[in-house]
Amino acid sequence: MEIHYSRRMSACPPSFLGELFRVSSDPRIISFAGGLPDASLIDVEGIRNAACEVLQEHGREALQYSTTDGYLPLREWIAARYRSRLGIDASPEAIQIVNGSQQCLDLVAKILLNPGDPVGIESPGYLGAIEAFSLYEPSFQSFPVIPSGPDRDSLGLLIRRFRPPFIYGIPNSQNPSGITWTGDQRRMVAGLLDGSCTLFYEDDAFGELFFDQKPRPPVSRFLPHQTLMSGSFSKIISPGLRTGWIFAPQKVLEAFNIVKQAADLHSNLLAQMVLHRYLTTVDLDRNLAVIVSRYESNCRLMCDLLDDLGRDGLTHTTPEGGMFMMAFLPEWVPSMELYKKGLDYGVAVLPGVPFHTDGRGSCSVRLNFSNTDEGRIQEGMTRLKKALLTFSTR
Amino acid sequence: MEIHYSRRMSACPPSFLGELFRVSSDPRIISFAGGLPDASLIDVEGIRNAACEVLQEHGREALQYSTTDGYLPLREWIAARYRSRLGIDASPEAIQIVNGSQQCLDLVAKILLNPGDPVGIESPGYLGAIEAFSLYEPSFQSFPVIPSGPDRDSLGLLIRRFRPPFIYGIPNSQNPSGITWTGDQRRMVAGLLDGSCTLFYEDDAFGELFFDQKPRPPVSRFLPHQTLMSGSFSKIISPGLRTGWIFAPQKVLEAFNIVKQAADLHSNLLAQMVLHRYLTTVDLDRNLAVIVSRYESNCRLMCDLLDDLGRDGLTHTTPEGGMFMMAFLPEWVPSMELYKKGLDYGVAVLPGVPFHTDGRGSCSVRLNFSNTDEGRIQEGMTRLKKALLTFSTR
Repeated sequence: MEIHYSRRMSACPPSFLGELFRVSSDPRIISFAGGLPDASLIDVEGIRNAACEVLQEHGREALQYSTTDGYLPLREWIAARYRSRLGIDASPEAIQIVNGSQQCLDLVAKILLNPGDPVGIESPGYLGAIEAFSLYEPSFQSFPVIPSGPDRDSLGLLIRRFRPPFIYGIPNSQNPSGITWTGDQRRMVAGLLDGSCTLFYEDDAFGELFFDQKPRPPVSRFLPHQTLMSGSFSKIISPGLRTGWIFAPQKVLEAFNIVKQAADLHSNLLAQMVLHRYLTTVDLDRNLAVIVSRYESNCRLMCDLLDDLGRDGLTHTTPEGGMFMMAFLPEWVPSMELYKKGLDYGVAVLPGVPFHTDGRGSCSVRLNFSNTDEGRIQEGMTRLKKALLTFSTR
Repeated sequence: MEIHYSRRMSACPPSFLGELFRVSSDPRIISFAGGLPDASLIDVEGIRNAACEVLQEHGREALQYSTTDGYLPLREWIAARYRSRLGIDASPEAIQIVNGSQQCLDLVAKILLNPGDPVGIESPGYLGAIEAFSLYEPSFQSFPVIPSGPDRDSLGLLIRRFRPPFIYGIPNSQNPSGITWTGDQRRMVAGLLDGSCTLFYEDDAFGELFFDQKPRPPVSRFLPHQTLMSGSFSKIISPGLRTGWIFAPQKVLEAFNIVKQAADLHSNLLAQMVLHRYLTTVDLDRNLAVIVSRYESNCRLMCDLLDDLGRDGLTHTTPEGGMFMMAFLPEWVPSMELYKKGLDYGVAVLPGVPFHTDGRGSCSVRLNFSNTDEGRIQEGMTRLKKALLTFSTR
């Protein structure tokens, strides 16, 4: 029989991930194209101890159905960390647990977007957000992110002209660009939005991964009643546990709770209880220091080697944290062509195209520096240079 | 600020669950209104052993990102069980893992329904399905389920007249009615659908919970290329692990994979690996024998006590398995009124109204017999009788 899919299915951009998966499982290829944290830095022993203890002491509770909003002690921990680290007035009632912060993207779009609605997104913007939002058939309105944050004029015009239900952004070590908004830019964005009918969706997947381990003030602090913020344990503890959260005004949370319940009743309770046990028995900040130190040295090495390619016309961002940076190619090197040529030379980079809703990205690539090491960065950058040099300057 | 929700939010029926939660946490009330499996029958020790072993031997893998379709060995186990138990030609490639089978409801609706599209559903039908589908703004078309299964004429007319993208049903021990379709009814439904443009969505949450432990042939067996079937470990091992699956034709799965990835990337990998370890080291059928034996004796006792109320005008279904039965009230007892009066007497039953998309259900209640015991059933039924007798016969 022929199957008639819903219209939203044709709004979904073709995914690059199948291709990426093929590439990343080929041992001959050094891949900077993926987006995994370094598995060797996951505290397996700490998590195992937490899991065995939780199942020993509270197994029957951990394995039964639970509430949609999530395990209260974990939400209390998150709220306390927000209060102490970011200085924001967070209560556990303002936090709900999700299956990794990707689920927030789906559910927030579900409660706020009708087909054709405008939604503001950075250019470049996060691929996973573009994919999730696309299924709600919005009209993407992008605003450029210059090295210090969003371009004021573009964003202001976008808000006034399109009045989108929300604007989505990653102010801390953005995926894909690695850019971090300055404090002034955060206040500027809050000021532009204040009093408008537009919410700010602040995706904070990387806020705990600054190389200096110092927090940056979230936009939420300057615009608390109009900002919803998502967070995740995927980058700081374990992605396989699929546990993230949303922190949002009560009105948003009420609607969010309805769609979360319809989507999957609640998130894995065992994972929530294990994470809570883990967080209350280990020194998270010390573990994070190890992770960010590794990521920082990888990042600096990659930047240094990319600088050597500067005379060949390549520039790049210089991240303060996170897992990604972006390289901008000389105009005679199309990113899709560099991707293919790179594979010939045994190195994979991710073309910028799928990170754009405005048809741009043909001259940029995303590079991951978390799931690699010094040797692979050295060799991979050598291969990338060879691939780059096959393109004639005109 | 005022928040403008998407149109789909106003299509969502008000949920009864908050109320239910309040009721079930009141120790003075004996509740048959919930839908939990008996937590005392969860094999906590077996799951703990499996979890500790998986984290010991494969911790780094279990805690890293994974693929959207799910852990292959678990999908192989499910496929093998389908082949040996149900005699259907299942391969692991035809199975994808989800966060409990509730997630299938959301994602199947997402790939198949446009606003206004007809969708066929039993009357009474599963509340969780009604809630999940509602957010895609379909036009519900219900067909009555008589004690042996769907009414042939109604269903045939529905398919011909409305040509829905899919029909949803629970042929095994339905939630809420406890009705199991006969083999003939299954063949009849397959015959009606064969060659039409309508898929059958076979929700099989309870197929492993028949009191005689004998499998019933799924509709999928008679209509393999046109049926998608969902399954779940929630009722047979643990709901807190939020692990279910979809078994579907390849074309459906391709679209399903896209929306699953956009929804939450993938399901909790640790839970999938723990379940696989558990399933390959314990005797599932022996554990199931203990569970169904308990549920059967609860069910028989409840039926016997409800029979005593027969002279007061009450009738009920007689389940062959599962966790629920339905009682039909005399015409002078509205189910919402009985619900309220029951609370006064310290017993909770679930009114039939939210299980109907056609405005019916005012004269039926759902009774859960899994999460209770002999003493509570005895006392609860005594209280229910008292509540029932407060209604005058006219």
